[in-house]
Amino acid sequence: MRIIVDAFGGDNAPLEVLRGCAMAVKEYGVDIIACGSEKTIREVCQKNRIPLDRISITDVEKVIPVEVDPTEVVKSYDDCTMAVGMKMLASGEGDAFVSAGSTGAIVVGASLFVKRIKGIKRAALATVIPSQDGCYMLLDMGANAECRPEMLVQFGIMGSAYMEHVLGIERPRVGIINIGTEENKGLELQIDAYRMMQHAPVNFVGNVEPRDLPFTKCDVAVADGFVGNVVLKLTEGLGSWFSKELKGILFQNAASKIGAVFLSKGVLSFKKKMDYTEYGGAPLMGISKPVIKAHGSSNAKAFKNAIRQAKEYTERGVIGEISDALAQLRANAADNRTEG
Amino acid sequence: MRIIVDAFGGDNAPLEVLRGCAMAVKEYGVDIIACGSEKTIREVCQKNRIPLDRISITDVEKVIPVEVDPTEVVKSYDDCTMAVGMKMLASGEGDAFVSAGSTGAIVVGASLFVKRIKGIKRAALATVIPSQDGCYMLLDMGANAECRPEMLVQFGIMGSAYMEHVLGIERPRVGIINIGTEENKGLELQIDAYRMMQHAPVNFVGNVEPRDLPFTKCDVAVADGFVGNVVLKLTEGLGSWFSKELKGILFQNAASKIGAVFLSKGVLSFKKKMDYTEYGGAPLMGISKPVIKAHGSSNAKAFKNAIRQAKEYTERGVIGEISDALAQLRANAADNRTEG
Repeated sequence: MRIIVDAFGGDNAPLEVLRGCAMAVKEYGVDIIACGSEKTIREVCQKNRIPLDRISITDVEKVIPVEVDPTEVVKSYDDCTMAVGMKMLASGEGDAFVSAGSTGAIVVGASLFVKRIKGIKRAALATVIPSQDGCYMLLDMGANAECRPEMLVQFGIMGSAYMEHVLGIERPRVGIINIGTEENKGLELQIDAYRMMQHAPVNFVGNVEPRDLPFTKCDVAVADGFVGNVVLKLTEGLGSWFSKELKGILFQNAASKIGAVFLSKGVLSFKKKMDYTEYGGAPLMGISKPVIKAHGSSNAKAFKNAIRQAKEYTERGVIGEISDALAQLRANAADNRTEG
Repeated sequence: MRIIVDAFGGDNAPLEVLRGCAMAVKEYGVDIIACGSEKTIREVCQKNRIPLDRISITDVEKVIPVEVDPTEVVKSYDDCTMAVGMKMLASGEGDAFVSAGSTGAIVVGASLFVKRIKGIKRAALATVIPSQDGCYMLLDMGANAECRPEMLVQFGIMGSAYMEHVLGIERPRVGIINIGTEENKGLELQIDAYRMMQHAPVNFVGNVEPRDLPFTKCDVAVADGFVGNVVLKLTEGLGSWFSKELKGILFQNAASKIGAVFLSKGVLSFKKKMDYTEYGGAPLMGISKPVIKAHGSSNAKAFKNAIRQAKEYTERGVIGEISDALAQLRANAADNRTEG
């Protein structure tokens, strides 16, 4: 398995990216193709004693800054590390692509260089969010601020394929994030998506209210990119606040410090559950080859896990499963037309 | 101060509502006008030893169920406890109105029986949400799923008046909930509201990302009712999950139970911070007289606090402040036209 990596994407590039690559080589036995300035990569690796075994370098100087308009990745930045890596993926020089760079540029670049799966309207960023009984997949988490109902249906199909084939969940329950559970709740988008989702080849469980998301009332939660991004960021913010409060409770005075000693095991297991670096990156679903967006502030461990995710996404054939489900959706629609 | 109460609104009516009324009479020295079946109220109070001092009863038999279409409150249910209470408020027989009944019916009823403040496009449900350094006000939390940008500006003005005059926060910081902080982020709604908010008589601090809400980056957070409802319900859900996790950590085994003893003070203070019953109800802002929506599942304490909120909202003259700010907004707009 050859994973192409944008060595200069993200807040902590290239050091943490390269560290993550070296860890992934060792743990998962993958080969890495790192796109970026060969001179800098060699210097950073030498200085920080990062082994370059099974890491080849494609020498690219230009890097696309996060503040640049995302569409520039196919215009004046079409020779940057991200663009070169995606073009290599498209031409078959690697099996998957991972970057912690600008989300917008990854979405635009992947859609134009790598192309979408036939029939997919728009690619969606999907992320796995910890919850009481495990986790659920949220999509779209921000690639498409505005969505049409058929896009939400496709998100359901894509998330379902991922949860079933990567995380091994049987008949994943798909829900629409909404402000009420009744089928007439929400805006036109949710009402129409509800109707259409009933004919999709997924295990549709209806609308899910945000208060039920942490209790895993569904395995795949679909929303437009605006609402999805709100859910993701509020979960991050509240998680970070509660962690701070917990720390405050444990270490506020001498008595509580004694108490903390007795609790360390439970606290550690909760911390691990909430740790985003455990979950890897966000697959850009709907693209015809595996593209993974790692968190912009990824450290080595998070980047390593994003590479693991790229490997699993590729090996488990998620993209083939999505294509099959889309074909079935079209067949269902044709049947409905014939019956009607 | 005479508070009109819908004695038959909410999951725990009339018992918990009446208990809350009796507690409010004792603690805040208010007079209560309870709308509902006089026979049932007298029976429930006698059976549960709830004193009826300073509580008068307006005998109304009909109650609007939560599942009925909200507009029915002004049609076939215009003689229900909620409708009668609001009409009494409109005609000056009381100073404020509190109900734990159907949110939709309260919004429709208040807008049509009590009327909006002159110039206000739509009433908004506002709620105070706990955060790291205290709390912030979120509006709209669900009265208007779809909004126009000028409505978001009015929400900012109304929330600002509340936070300044009821909670005593000087120059409350108003933010727009958005998926990025830059002024060109989000949908047309957020982009246009950003531009218009700059000319409003509020301390506008720009867009606020959901991950910063728990860290009180603003005192008033505005959003359309769909996004506001998502923020409210996800906060509730995650709060409830984290409380359970904390309990699990504290009581999972003998060692942790020992630890828990040393921590009880910190845990209690956090629990109090997160307790929605402390914060009372949600004012329906933009209505020309004080209308408070209590949580549907209010217990006596929550209902008592909703009455306290009604009292404070009335005494501090929030409605007058909103009117003044709207006049200033119109003057600013006129100035801009003259300059432009």
